[in-house]
Amino acid sequence: MAKLPKRSEDYSGWYNELVKSADLAENSAVRGCMVIKPYGYSIWEKMQQELDRRFKETGHSNAYFPLFIPKSYLSKEASHVEGFAKECAVVTHYRLKNSPDGKGVIVDPDAKLEEELIVRPTSETIIWNTYKNWVQSYRDLPILVNQWANVVRWEMRTRLFLRTAEFLWQEGHTAHATQQEAEAEAQQMLEVYADFAENIMALPVLKGVKTPNERFAGAIDTYCIEALMQDGKALQAGTSHFLGQNFAKAFDVKFTAKDNKLDFVWGTSWGVSTRLMGALIMAHSDDEGLVLPPNLAPIQVVIVPIYKTEEQLNAISEKVNGWKKELIKQGISVKFDNRDTQSPGWKFAEYELKGVPIRIAIGPRDLENNTCEVARRDTKEKFSVNGDEIVQLIPELLKKIQDTIYQKALSFKNQNTIEVNSWEEFKKAIDTKGGFISAHWDGTSETEEKIKEETKATIRCIPLNNKQEAGKCIFTGNPSKERVIFALNY
Amino acid sequence: MAKLPKRSEDYSGWYNELVKSADLAENSAVRGCMVIKPYGYSIWEKMQQELDRRFKETGHSNAYFPLFIPKSYLSKEASHVEGFAKECAVVTHYRLKNSPDGKGVIVDPDAKLEEELIVRPTSETIIWNTYKNWVQSYRDLPILVNQWANVVRWEMRTRLFLRTAEFLWQEGHTAHATQQEAEAEAQQMLEVYADFAENIMALPVLKGVKTPNERFAGAIDTYCIEALMQDGKALQAGTSHFLGQNFAKAFDVKFTAKDNKLDFVWGTSWGVSTRLMGALIMAHSDDEGLVLPPNLAPIQVVIVPIYKTEEQLNAISEKVNGWKKELIKQGISVKFDNRDTQSPGWKFAEYELKGVPIRIAIGPRDLENNTCEVARRDTKEKFSVNGDEIVQLIPELLKKIQDTIYQKALSFKNQNTIEVNSWEEFKKAIDTKGGFISAHWDGTSETEEKIKEETKATIRCIPLNNKQEAGKCIFTGNPSKERVIFALNY
Repeated sequence: MAKLPKRSEDYSGWYNELVKSADLAENSAVRGCMVIKPYGYSIWEKMQQELDRRFKETGHSNAYFPLFIPKSYLSKEASHVEGFAKECAVVTHYRLKNSPDGKGVIVDPDAKLEEELIVRPTSETIIWNTYKNWVQSYRDLPILVNQWANVVRWEMRTRLFLRTAEFLWQEGHTAHATQQEAEAEAQQMLEVYADFAENIMALPVLKGVKTPNERFAGAIDTYCIEALMQDGKALQAGTSHFLGQNFAKAFDVKFTAKDNKLDFVWGTSWGVSTRLMGALIMAHSDDEGLVLPPNLAPIQVVIVPIYKTEEQLNAISEKVNGWKKELIKQGISVKFDNRDTQSPGWKFAEYELKGVPIRIAIGPRDLENNTCEVARRDTKEKFSVNGDEIVQLIPELLKKIQDTIYQKALSFKNQNTIEVNSWEEFKKAIDTKGGFISAHWDGTSETEEKIKEETKATIRCIPLNNKQEAGKCIFTGNPSKERVIFALNY
Repeated sequence: MAKLPKRSEDYSGWYNELVKSADLAENSAVRGCMVIKPYGYSIWEKMQQELDRRFKETGHSNAYFPLFIPKSYLSKEASHVEGFAKECAVVTHYRLKNSPDGKGVIVDPDAKLEEELIVRPTSETIIWNTYKNWVQSYRDLPILVNQWANVVRWEMRTRLFLRTAEFLWQEGHTAHATQQEAEAEAQQMLEVYADFAENIMALPVLKGVKTPNERFAGAIDTYCIEALMQDGKALQAGTSHFLGQNFAKAFDVKFTAKDNKLDFVWGTSWGVSTRLMGALIMAHSDDEGLVLPPNLAPIQVVIVPIYKTEEQLNAISEKVNGWKKELIKQGISVKFDNRDTQSPGWKFAEYELKGVPIRIAIGPRDLENNTCEVARRDTKEKFSVNGDEIVQLIPELLKKIQDTIYQKALSFKNQNTIEVNSWEEFKKAIDTKGGFISAHWDGTSETEEKIKEETKATIRCIPLNNKQEAGKCIFTGNPSKERVIFALNY
């Protein structure tokens, strides 16, 4: 097994190598498109289940809309087409034919589409075009719909999970009778994301609202959760947009209100993607490999037998199968790795690399003493446990590990959130350890852009319920009424 | 609520209207692409859960492969590109730009791809190209992977669920060290599909193997399940392919066997799609609307209060909430429709249209007598039930309804499976009630094609474990060793 680069020496190389060697994902033959391997996908499935349950508990249903969007739709909402990257996959033809030279196939020039189709980079336009037919009266509202789908944005520089041409995501699209209701929905979904990040991903997040510069193209307000990676860079982990009546106006979606007046519908959209996989990996893992919070670990407990004879393995298996049965009953996923093709040492390294939260090793001596060795992936602690206590200990230990991983990330975030009060302090912070940098800003897009040009740092968000505090902009010295959070970011 | 056409008068119109009015799906603005509406999608989700559980129980994991396939890949497996329809969506460019006339966007001619990308019509080629890097030795086998994905085949004549340009499906792709293992896998997955169809969809199916003419392009054997619709036409509900070493050879996927010899890997692929939604609808529904088997019904029980005063509704609600709590505990999905915007009569028709298996109506008189009225969607029977017995009765009744729907479909299939022994009998059967027509065939593709030309009937399959019986081909009179199943089909 190849060793990973050290985070302290090559954070980026460490990440790339970890994603591949832990069997999470790999690059495909198609530029920028990834293959999500079974182990990586099983983590994504757990994320999906947890999110989907939360969406349904808050009243949403899933639906499915077309992969393709007529080109003309993209320009219907002016700021959407302006702000949205124009890098996208364009379908121009609908048929191949045999090549005249007998070698393979060519695009049939006679099968040109009248209007080109865009592979969806996001679905606001096609969905609002559909909602037009679903809404007549206030009785048809709200529409609370989510879609699990693939989307394509033709990125030039790609990195597995973090930035890929095709990625998987969910996109919620809701329609409401009032502004208040739509705003409340956008905020509610931000809370859902934050709850998921903190309790399932063990990832503490900063909740806030984007500056106009960083808003989603077509939104009135973009709410976001921002997480901090171990290299001091921020990662936007989810966004929830209050769209106002922008898309309703672009696609003429009107309804008759209770007072019989005709009005445009209010909208929201919100999404998280396979990018969360990147956040999960970068937030918790170490130089030995993945560290997975138990709530997302495909295998929560691995049991490795240590034996020389068939007889010893049989005796160990009998013991282990008893534990396994009891643990599975409690909903814990347990793997007994009794392969004889690999040594225990190889298996230890493998499950460390794959981030399995608890490893149990058991050999003939343990059997005699009715013990086993339990190892925690997160702290690397090892201790001997009485065999009769395993079934009770494991679920408690999983909870403890989940909490420890969260607390570690939380204290990292707290230690790396600093207030600066001058341009020198700001630049020094950016150049040294990064982190969330809380600073006064004069509120103008010009200043925001200049700061970005000089330091690459962007305003990640204005925190929700931000403390109002008079101060001076670190860049211009102009008056400021509150601090905002800057960071370098993924 | 618009009335549906009658099945006996306009089966096709009945189907189209039912799909729309029951809120299952609708056509989108993109030719041939459908919108799957929340109610339709929730049925599909239930199908997915049941199938996914079965795939995992048989050792498969999910993964995800790129949406796009380089054009040249399609021609690597010769019969694949020959047999596969060349109607597919072709991506030729990766960028839009603002139109010089200021109106909207145009395709940027400078952003032409070197090699065109095809939106996957199926993923054998991109997946086998990936497996090449996953397999070195027999220790890396088997690979048991499934993918839930969207695929695109540019169909000219589309029908919601049955034939759409984009559809959702799962595609399993497995790789094995031996022919025996791969054949067993292909057969196992056919059994999984049949079990799902019969026990979950309440859909009796005929299991068989396709003739060479009807095989998947690139397969050695295509196994299939065929179901019979109420109009006497067959519908192919799922296929499982034994691919031999065809794709391994096309993509050079070799492995070192236990005996140290290098050999090509053996493969299978298998899939079912949102077409199953069409089968479900057409197999069971009636002139009043959907009939859903309880195992797939998003709402299994709807409770409709009948009241005049707020006080009456409160008393009813108290009673109903008690039932609801107990039923939900048992995993039953219950909806209490206490909307005051619609009349009970409107609600009755609505839930009939949507195929909710059990409807409970309860009014003030019922409260006095501690009774309620229970109505079955499948048989339309209504009966009065003592309120204390509801919690016990409902789960039993749901099982009974599931079974009744299956038995009804089974007896329809049996009654419409007939043996014919002459060309006249054959043509008469095709022209009158259709069905599965069991007839002798001389085993040649020529005869198969001629029969298709003359009658549109195709050989749906050679049943598994088919009785060997000497006879004469109904078309040519040449000797035949077994009967095969002909039908008109979707």
